[in-house]
Amino acid sequence: METNAPEPTEPPAAPTPDDAPWLTAREQRLWRAHLEVSRLLEYQLGRELQGHDLAINDYEILVVLSESPDHRMRMTDLATATLQSKSRLSHQITRMESAGLVLRQECPGDRRGLYAHLTEHGWQTLRKAAPDHVRSVRAHFIDRFDDEQLDAMYTALAPIAEHLRALRGRA
Amino acid sequence: METNAPEPTEPPAAPTPDDAPWLTAREQRLWRAHLEVSRLLEYQLGRELQGHDLAINDYEILVVLSESPDHRMRMTDLATATLQSKSRLSHQITRMESAGLVLRQECPGDRRGLYAHLTEHGWQTLRKAAPDHVRSVRAHFIDRFDDEQLDAMYTALAPIAEHLRALRGRA
Repeated sequence: METNAPEPTEPPAAPTPDDAPWLTAREQRLWRAHLEVSRLLEYQLGRELQGHDLAINDYEILVVLSESPDHRMRMTDLATATLQSKSRLSHQITRMESAGLVLRQECPGDRRGLYAHLTEHGWQTLRKAAPDHVRSVRAHFIDRFDDEQLDAMYTALAPIAEHLRALRGRA
Repeated sequence: METNAPEPTEPPAAPTPDDAPWLTAREQRLWRAHLEVSRLLEYQLGRELQGHDLAINDYEILVVLSESPDHRMRMTDLATATLQSKSRLSHQITRMESAGLVLRQECPGDRRGLYAHLTEHGWQTLRKAAPDHVRSVRAHFIDRFDDEQLDAMYTALAPIAEHLRALRGRA
């Protein structure tokens, strides 16, 4: 067992492959900042939704359903829209059903399965939570960029989002 | 139940608070791109680690332990370093212990509790996985920015990471 900690910018004593040299210090600091912002932001937004008895994933599902025709969506489409596995979504919808936020319903004459349907309580919960949530998103993310940064970040991230969606088979 | 889906750039029929107007289309597109990249990237990196029988969180813990003196860390410090709750970390360490990647050990004479210790198998697993992981990070994120974008992104994200760390009480 070695006891010397490798420098953070070097791989852990592994050979560096020619086609993918280890991150430079400059690349590494961006990579770590990205990881930190992603995780801490999800944590903080989730915390600030607790007053509405919502988890961050609940909020997202309420938004997606509220934007769908008739406030409902096929479970498989909802899994796609929220980038979740079907089994994980199913567990989450079960919890949200217990909280009265959504209903799972079969669609008569449609063999393609179950729908998740926003309830009136779910809709009212979303209406109440949305202003607080946008306040959180502004305070901890959006309002921390100037106009130039807003556009530069989008320009940099949009093609990556597209690339990753294509990989996920949802392009 | 209303059936008109609100525009994505507007809140779901909720009044907009004066101190936090709803996101503009320009802000909204960045917010959505950020969310997508965060989630899809975590998904993709996790997928590409499966060949090494590692989850993305396992990988991170192996890295943190490998960079610690004597390849071990107090569980509470490890939870802080990986931004996880103690209970969630405890479950994860249990799984990793079953896989032979880490050991949980009491430290004699230290009443401050348990350590997680990288095993030789954990260290070798990390050495093997690291080149593939850096290849993934480059392919799906880092190599998709030019030098100017790398620095601009870091300049924009670093203060947000610091702000969020402070909120989390780890600054």
